[in-house]
Amino acid sequence: MSQNKTIMEVNQELVKERAKCNFNVLEVTHILDGGEKNTLHRKKIESIALDEGAYKDPIPEEYLSPKEKYENAVRKSCLFCKIVKNALTEFTGLEHFSNFFVLRRTADAFFKEISPFLLHLGMFLPTILGQCTTEQQAYWLPRVLDIQIIGTYAQTELGHGTFIRGLETTATYDPETEEFVLHSPTLTSYKWWAGGLGKTVNYCIVVAQLYTKGVCHGTHLFIVQIRDEETHMPLPGIKVGEIGAKMGFNTADNGYLAFDHYRIPRQNMMMKNAQVLKDGTYVKPDSHGKLTYGTMVLVRVILVNEVAFNLAKACTIATRYSAVRRQSQPKPNEPEPQILDYTTQQHKLFICIATAHALQLASAWLWKTFNAVMSDMKKGNTDSLPELHALSSCLKALSTSDVTSLIEQCRYSCGGHGYMLCSGLPNIYSFVTATRTYEGDYTILLLQTARFLVKAYEQAEAGTPVTPTVLYLIEFVSGKRTPWDGSPEGIIKSFQEIAAGNISSCVKSIRNRMSSGLSFEDAWELTTIQLVGAAEAHCRAVISDTYKKEIARITASSSTNVKIVMEQLVNLYLHYWALNRTGDLLRYSSISGEDVANLQMKYEELLTLIRPNAVGLVDAFDLRDEILHSALGSYDGQVYKRLFAEALKSPLNQEPVNETFHKYLKPTMQGKL
Amino acid sequence: MSQNKTIMEVNQELVKERAKCNFNVLEVTHILDGGEKNTLHRKKIESIALDEGAYKDPIPEEYLSPKEKYENAVRKSCLFCKIVKNALTEFTGLEHFSNFFVLRRTADAFFKEISPFLLHLGMFLPTILGQCTTEQQAYWLPRVLDIQIIGTYAQTELGHGTFIRGLETTATYDPETEEFVLHSPTLTSYKWWAGGLGKTVNYCIVVAQLYTKGVCHGTHLFIVQIRDEETHMPLPGIKVGEIGAKMGFNTADNGYLAFDHYRIPRQNMMMKNAQVLKDGTYVKPDSHGKLTYGTMVLVRVILVNEVAFNLAKACTIATRYSAVRRQSQPKPNEPEPQILDYTTQQHKLFICIATAHALQLASAWLWKTFNAVMSDMKKGNTDSLPELHALSSCLKALSTSDVTSLIEQCRYSCGGHGYMLCSGLPNIYSFVTATRTYEGDYTILLLQTARFLVKAYEQAEAGTPVTPTVLYLIEFVSGKRTPWDGSPEGIIKSFQEIAAGNISSCVKSIRNRMSSGLSFEDAWELTTIQLVGAAEAHCRAVISDTYKKEIARITASSSTNVKIVMEQLVNLYLHYWALNRTGDLLRYSSISGEDVANLQMKYEELLTLIRPNAVGLVDAFDLRDEILHSALGSYDGQVYKRLFAEALKSPLNQEPVNETFHKYLKPTMQGKL
Repeated sequence: MSQNKTIMEVNQELVKERAKCNFNVLEVTHILDGGEKNTLHRKKIESIALDEGAYKDPIPEEYLSPKEKYENAVRKSCLFCKIVKNALTEFTGLEHFSNFFVLRRTADAFFKEISPFLLHLGMFLPTILGQCTTEQQAYWLPRVLDIQIIGTYAQTELGHGTFIRGLETTATYDPETEEFVLHSPTLTSYKWWAGGLGKTVNYCIVVAQLYTKGVCHGTHLFIVQIRDEETHMPLPGIKVGEIGAKMGFNTADNGYLAFDHYRIPRQNMMMKNAQVLKDGTYVKPDSHGKLTYGTMVLVRVILVNEVAFNLAKACTIATRYSAVRRQSQPKPNEPEPQILDYTTQQHKLFICIATAHALQLASAWLWKTFNAVMSDMKKGNTDSLPELHALSSCLKALSTSDVTSLIEQCRYSCGGHGYMLCSGLPNIYSFVTATRTYEGDYTILLLQTARFLVKAYEQAEAGTPVTPTVLYLIEFVSGKRTPWDGSPEGIIKSFQEIAAGNISSCVKSIRNRMSSGLSFEDAWELTTIQLVGAAEAHCRAVISDTYKKEIARITASSSTNVKIVMEQLVNLYLHYWALNRTGDLLRYSSISGEDVANLQMKYEELLTLIRPNAVGLVDAFDLRDEILHSALGSYDGQVYKRLFAEALKSPLNQEPVNETFHKYLKPTMQGKL
Repeated sequence: MSQNKTIMEVNQELVKERAKCNFNVLEVTHILDGGEKNTLHRKKIESIALDEGAYKDPIPEEYLSPKEKYENAVRKSCLFCKIVKNALTEFTGLEHFSNFFVLRRTADAFFKEISPFLLHLGMFLPTILGQCTTEQQAYWLPRVLDIQIIGTYAQTELGHGTFIRGLETTATYDPETEEFVLHSPTLTSYKWWAGGLGKTVNYCIVVAQLYTKGVCHGTHLFIVQIRDEETHMPLPGIKVGEIGAKMGFNTADNGYLAFDHYRIPRQNMMMKNAQVLKDGTYVKPDSHGKLTYGTMVLVRVILVNEVAFNLAKACTIATRYSAVRRQSQPKPNEPEPQILDYTTQQHKLFICIATAHALQLASAWLWKTFNAVMSDMKKGNTDSLPELHALSSCLKALSTSDVTSLIEQCRYSCGGHGYMLCSGLPNIYSFVTATRTYEGDYTILLLQTARFLVKAYEQAEAGTPVTPTVLYLIEFVSGKRTPWDGSPEGIIKSFQEIAAGNISSCVKSIRNRMSSGLSFEDAWELTTIQLVGAAEAHCRAVISDTYKKEIARITASSSTNVKIVMEQLVNLYLHYWALNRTGDLLRYSSISGEDVANLQMKYEELLTLIRPNAVGLVDAFDLRDEILHSALGSYDGQVYKRLFAEALKSPLNQEPVNETFHKYLKPTMQGKL
């Protein structure tokens, strides 16, 4: 849609929906932005970046070849940087964090897929901030911030992902020349995936096994120039290129990189923590692992926020479309209802609105928790670190997985039209589904959380204190159960009982297996399906609890109707997930079969209550049409006109007869091919 | 991979896996093909179609623009028709049905997405066979079979999908000229979606509201010429074009079509059932609805078969990759395990193998059932029709939905590499996910089945006889429950109890709502979430029962180890789905919490038992590399070499520096943009 931001009259269906909405939409927008001041700031940035229409493409991106898409994205990345540089200078008052999100979201108007510069600001810069000494920063930061060079971050190899210790690229120190020699010994050691690496960047942070004085000290980080600054040619000893077409991210020129005994100066090792001295002496870091936490948690906070934003986009599109689309005739002689009036449609969509809220708040809460833990650490207290790690792992895993499914649910709710690229939904999906894998695969992250949970369970059994998010384990091991009362607090309590029950079952399985002769590792391995389930249950309890508490805190001073609708969404979230795990509820909480039936009725009532406010709720996300990129979801609801206008842009429609008719079809039909 | 079918040595990981396999792979291939004779036939067709390498592309399809992709697909469609015509002449002995599947599957080597001719053979031809009189067939069939004309089928409109009665296109009979006047009164009445319509076909079956003598007789079918046979120009009064880029099917030039008082001869109405006489008299069909069943059920049989085939592809790719890929180090000082050794990976993959078998058999069974019902009908017995309709609806819905999720599960199990288009998995997904919507949306079809189930429940309550697939309702209403024993038969029994319990709860909900004053329609509407769940449960019971019985029947004369592994897969399927619905089991069957824990243990044991045969099981699908199109899944398991070879084909890699460096990147880095 961004191609041609025609102004159309608002569809009467949406006019009526908006008139029906009983709460102040702007008030909810402020809540979601984190305050009115942030909303104004966001709108100003959006206005600077978008009002001039610089995001527009002559031909919609989806009709270009991948190479043309890339070239168009480079053009627009440079343009976006230029516009935004000025915008940033104008708004230096607000903290960096909120600015980052606003810019990231606004950039979606420019890129249906993604900018090839993403990792320059998203990984290259933060890693220099986190891993370089002050002198190194003095050298690199100005060049990076001013985009005199463009960089990326290369860790994953063709044969090695999650398991960092298995990386094969080597950096061997040569004290003669005071250089590191980078080398890729095998095909599986080729760096693979780094965004922007294929054709765009000239610098790259490389993760490699450090060897000095004949000893391997594990993986360390190095800043490596890979292309000539003047000619952009790969430097001698460097093999670099693009990895080929992907499901999404096709404008990000993800790349491969291999070294043939390639030399870099000693100073290019990132030395904030470990160091290699001129003579090759390796100086260990104080607490290597813990100091690298920061970037990792930050990236996860950003990811949870990012998927929440994408879910907001998807359900804005699907909800507006559902208010416009009419289908079937359940009652004779009555007009076809809006599909938003169908209970099954409400079931598909309203959980998306609630989840977008829940995850947006969870992301902000994780950031606050992280900062609290960091300030504890400065006082020498590292007790909360394992919990933070477990939390950030399961939140990243569950949020990306939930959102991936829910976006498809939005797409399905739009029927065939959701399958059109101009609906915007397929692009949102192919972008978000990748987040389930990168920066820690779903299963592996949940198993990391499970390891924390099993340890915490053993502590609870032993009567040792446990950290805040797993306090529920103490009640569980003491045999205490809360009688089911169906209240929101009661449901959250039951989620905690489910989590505790699942962890307890895992511990039992592991112990049984060990007592029948298996090693701990083998017993653990055989129990991993259950362990993943336990970590999921724990995370669901945490998100539910946080969502309810944060909404109560934030809406304390809100108007009555805003309070009511926000609470309805919290309850919807709780009921939805309770009904999703009735097996666990029946096994581990004190719920009865009859209670489950009541829960179902209550859930169906909530859908009916939320229905009149549905369009208002998605309007409150306040997503500009240019950012939505959707013929189905634009503010005016002119679904059919916009679908048809998009079709007319297809290059195949620019000529009445395609040349293949004369070359192939006609000869075939005349039996002459 | 098809681009460059290099012959490589088989990876030692796969050599070892194949040596470990304890059953006769070819025997299972024969089972899946429906007998040795069919296997030989299939292999001969594949050999004719593929051995010459006609499917090869100079540049891999994923690097072309959508327009270039379409043009390439037309070229190859003509080529495929030519090759296959000869192949068909050579093998006329076998029945049409099996030939259709073999050709459809073999065509996947030519089309990563789909042929623009798909609907010519898939809908145009069958509709002519089903809806034309003998004279009409005599006129049209030779032209269609010989591809003298190319056609498609246009039913859906921009504003109307599922609800056929809502279609707006009109066909008004004019007795003066003995013509029908086709007209599209609104934008929402534009035909939308028909495959091949955009640029390829010159004929089209159009569904329109028939008006004659001032009366509307509902939707009827018309054969309409839309383009000139010589010039291919759209005929006057016809507006036709392509609908634009989609998530998949981009080579199928789905189109739109509108009429401006466009005239066609009276004879072009398909008159096997209803007729319009010269003077405009409308002659009603005997049993309109029932006679059109055939095509619909056939299409569903084909769809279930098609998704089973695509799941076989996906799990072949993911299983072979998982045998080659090594990751992490759960035990110190031991090598990284094959990821296929992880329990969570087995959990993701083995259910896919079992489901591919279950659905392949379900499709064949549905076809048999359909034919039995048809021959009953010829004897005047139409009692089984509602059951057949309910069955075909829920089987289509559940199979497409299960497979859609399982294909993503396969893709996720391949980590980042699954996101590469050259893995083959994203294409399989974007193809299959569409089947969840077209030919009847998931939710709507399940609600149709639910309507049948609620009626059957009322019959059971009233003591009236019910049809075979819902016999379990009689036991349920009599209050009889089977004690849980954990056997396969017992699990299937419990699935039937779940279905009955769910239907019973729905009936209760509807009655409660009606007794509080709601109309039946409103009470039904509010219960639809539960009704969908009930229909799902019923369908799961049917698939499970059929799967178990068909495997027992087919493997009666198989060798022992084939019997064992096939039974293990059936049990795996049963345990997987039982564990997935523990809430229902605990509510409606006599299972205990302890039994659930045992079910879980048993499931984990089954994974371990199947593990050594995993690669053998996917080899048994016998999918040629050309059809798989996968760097990760090829028979030789040379995953990394093939990934890298694919990357090198990217057009971006054909020049060391992209022109955007000079145009945009360098000026940006030098602050000159």
